[in-house]
Amino acid sequence: MNAEIIAIGSEMLTPHRQDTNSLFLTQHLNDLGVTVAFKTIVGDSFEHLTSAISLALRRADIVLLSGGLGPTEDDLTREAAARALHLRLRRSETILEGLRERFRKRGYEMSDNNARQADVLDGATVLANANGSAPGQYLTPEVDGAQKILILLPGPPNELKHLFKHEALPLLAATVPPLHIATRHLRISLLPESQVDARTAPIYRQFPDVETTILAGRGEIHLHFTTTKASAEEARARVDELADLIHGELGDDIYSSNGESLEEVVLLMLGMRNLTLTCAESLTGGLLAQRITAVQNASRAFLGGAIVYTPDMKTRFADVPKHLLETKGSVCPEVAGLLAQGICRFTNSSLGIALTGIAGPPMTEGPDKDKPVGLVYIGLSDGHTTSVKELRLNGDRERIRLWASQHALDILRRHVM
Amino acid sequence: MNAEIIAIGSEMLTPHRQDTNSLFLTQHLNDLGVTVAFKTIVGDSFEHLTSAISLALRRADIVLLSGGLGPTEDDLTREAAARALHLRLRRSETILEGLRERFRKRGYEMSDNNARQADVLDGATVLANANGSAPGQYLTPEVDGAQKILILLPGPPNELKHLFKHEALPLLAATVPPLHIATRHLRISLLPESQVDARTAPIYRQFPDVETTILAGRGEIHLHFTTTKASAEEARARVDELADLIHGELGDDIYSSNGESLEEVVLLMLGMRNLTLTCAESLTGGLLAQRITAVQNASRAFLGGAIVYTPDMKTRFADVPKHLLETKGSVCPEVAGLLAQGICRFTNSSLGIALTGIAGPPMTEGPDKDKPVGLVYIGLSDGHTTSVKELRLNGDRERIRLWASQHALDILRRHVM
Repeated sequence: MNAEIIAIGSEMLTPHRQDTNSLFLTQHLNDLGVTVAFKTIVGDSFEHLTSAISLALRRADIVLLSGGLGPTEDDLTREAAARALHLRLRRSETILEGLRERFRKRGYEMSDNNARQADVLDGATVLANANGSAPGQYLTPEVDGAQKILILLPGPPNELKHLFKHEALPLLAATVPPLHIATRHLRISLLPESQVDARTAPIYRQFPDVETTILAGRGEIHLHFTTTKASAEEARARVDELADLIHGELGDDIYSSNGESLEEVVLLMLGMRNLTLTCAESLTGGLLAQRITAVQNASRAFLGGAIVYTPDMKTRFADVPKHLLETKGSVCPEVAGLLAQGICRFTNSSLGIALTGIAGPPMTEGPDKDKPVGLVYIGLSDGHTTSVKELRLNGDRERIRLWASQHALDILRRHVM
Repeated sequence: MNAEIIAIGSEMLTPHRQDTNSLFLTQHLNDLGVTVAFKTIVGDSFEHLTSAISLALRRADIVLLSGGLGPTEDDLTREAAARALHLRLRRSETILEGLRERFRKRGYEMSDNNARQADVLDGATVLANANGSAPGQYLTPEVDGAQKILILLPGPPNELKHLFKHEALPLLAATVPPLHIATRHLRISLLPESQVDARTAPIYRQFPDVETTILAGRGEIHLHFTTTKASAEEARARVDELADLIHGELGDDIYSSNGESLEEVVLLMLGMRNLTLTCAESLTGGLLAQRITAVQNASRAFLGGAIVYTPDMKTRFADVPKHLLETKGSVCPEVAGLLAQGICRFTNSSLGIALTGIAGPPMTEGPDKDKPVGLVYIGLSDGHTTSVKELRLNGDRERIRLWASQHALDILRRHVM
């Protein structure tokens, strides 16, 4: 079976906003074995909306509408669905009473507009909205002789997600024939996409029954394998077989076999070896620490560190000699090494990692003048032994900082491994 | 005039990828006075693609296709557009020679597949692709008696953006009647959207000729005003008039009147007053520093700071007494104040800001046990005077950390102002 998702709202036709609900819905539909064939974004126009719903009901088995269920004049989804299906809207006294109660509880009087949220399409099942005032609706109309499913969902993501999962999904799951799907996610850091594809394509092409997706971005490649079989065991065995072969080819370049992030893997490995980590960030100004501390319970292995954005901070926090900074500048292997060693010793941690580099624009004075944008040094120290890696990164400020933090995490992973 | 954008590629119908080209295209179309009426996302299916193009050419004046111009079997945009318009494809010898040359330069032999990229729709203007091998195409077909514009664009964002701006836009601009558009962007921090709307709606409703868009998210509200007039001066004066009235209503709650970010505004104000800033981050683990250092030339006012993720780091970097941490815990006003004062003194900066709090999960032991998730203290010190603000934030780990950093920036802005 296939589906079309229609996101409704003029704000999603501006340069400033994007529909994101469809990603959540797609994940759940795929889990049921339903593929999404079309996504449409349409504004708050009755005519456009009605024609989009009519078209979708002809070309897809399941049609999901998100948005346009609010109380304002711009909210036209109920009316447009009624027109598209030649159905009548009835005002539900039960819903109306619920709405009045909701407003009473918050100390407001319900305005007349809100009463429209109690309008239900003939034959629809009402889907309760735990997080908002607009209920959803679930219909199984016949269109051109075929049985279709039409689901009206509220637009705000917290309302849509809860309502879809708890109210719509059980109804859908009871209708859609059950399938046994298995997936595996492998993650690779820092290799170019073309190289990953060249090395893995000869393998995954031998598995035409497994859908392979390669996603690249932000210094990572993610390989997704999905297959559908008669039994859960068979499906699982098949994706595992492929994942094992890919592992044999890429080896250590794969940092995660079950979807963990690089930060999580590094923290896990540090934790298992009872190692603690601190950092001294110049180039990345807190980005590395921020990525690590975004993981729950990071403090088991990550202690903290220093943001040494100016030369003076490098001396204060990590004892980098002033004369070195004045003569060789902040961006050189010596400073990266001393920062790593200094922060490690000062904090008494097992490992210290340091990043220095030029994110752009080019320096116009001082000893770092004439060093190219994208030049980066990453130091790693255990207090005694220190190593430094030089990188030449491309791109803008954001990309250079992100990739530098990605390299730092990968250096940590390979060191602890 | 209106437009429909069709993004082509099965990966954009998975839970993992989203079309982003349409945001860029919408911005440029709006600047020409063209509104986007529909966006469609369709996979690499010849049948789906052909019907989507046919439909779009009937319901919109301008149709933009992005993607599906590559050399693989999945790339079907040229063929589908030909079918939808009943046009023939001719192979262009000029383009073919260009493709061969491109491959020669890189030391590769061109494969037969790539020759398809030289297929041109009858009557199309070829749009050169400076960043890739697939050229774009520009057509003005008649559909149902009306003159339409159809533009084929490559999918990779760097190719699409350059090609659209330099090749397609000049052709479009020569066709679309000229308009004078003016826009103003106001940004507000930390106020709830409902409050901003309640206070501003009575004002902007008096300007029906100005389109007002309210965007809320990540602790900010952005107000966008756009109007179209006979002259540029008239348009500018009208949005300025509205912006001035909104300013009168919201006052200091507006932190930026021309689209600058909160980080940029804080750095600008610190710079103007010759003040320097450092931070001590526990809760946010580098997020605040990272946001600030993402701005170019941040080092003029921002020196650095410490990530004091564990109690021991709070003592080492900011002299917070051990017994205080052991008795009152890390999350209390005293620690926030001492961290701010300590980092300010240790680094000899004009201002020190500190964040401590519980991002979740709840603490299971120690003196911070039983403190609620979302409890946050932000300290601000100039080395002599120190103030502390208590917050109770909602949401998950990511949201609490983000909002805490947003509050910290706003506290800095109001202090320096």
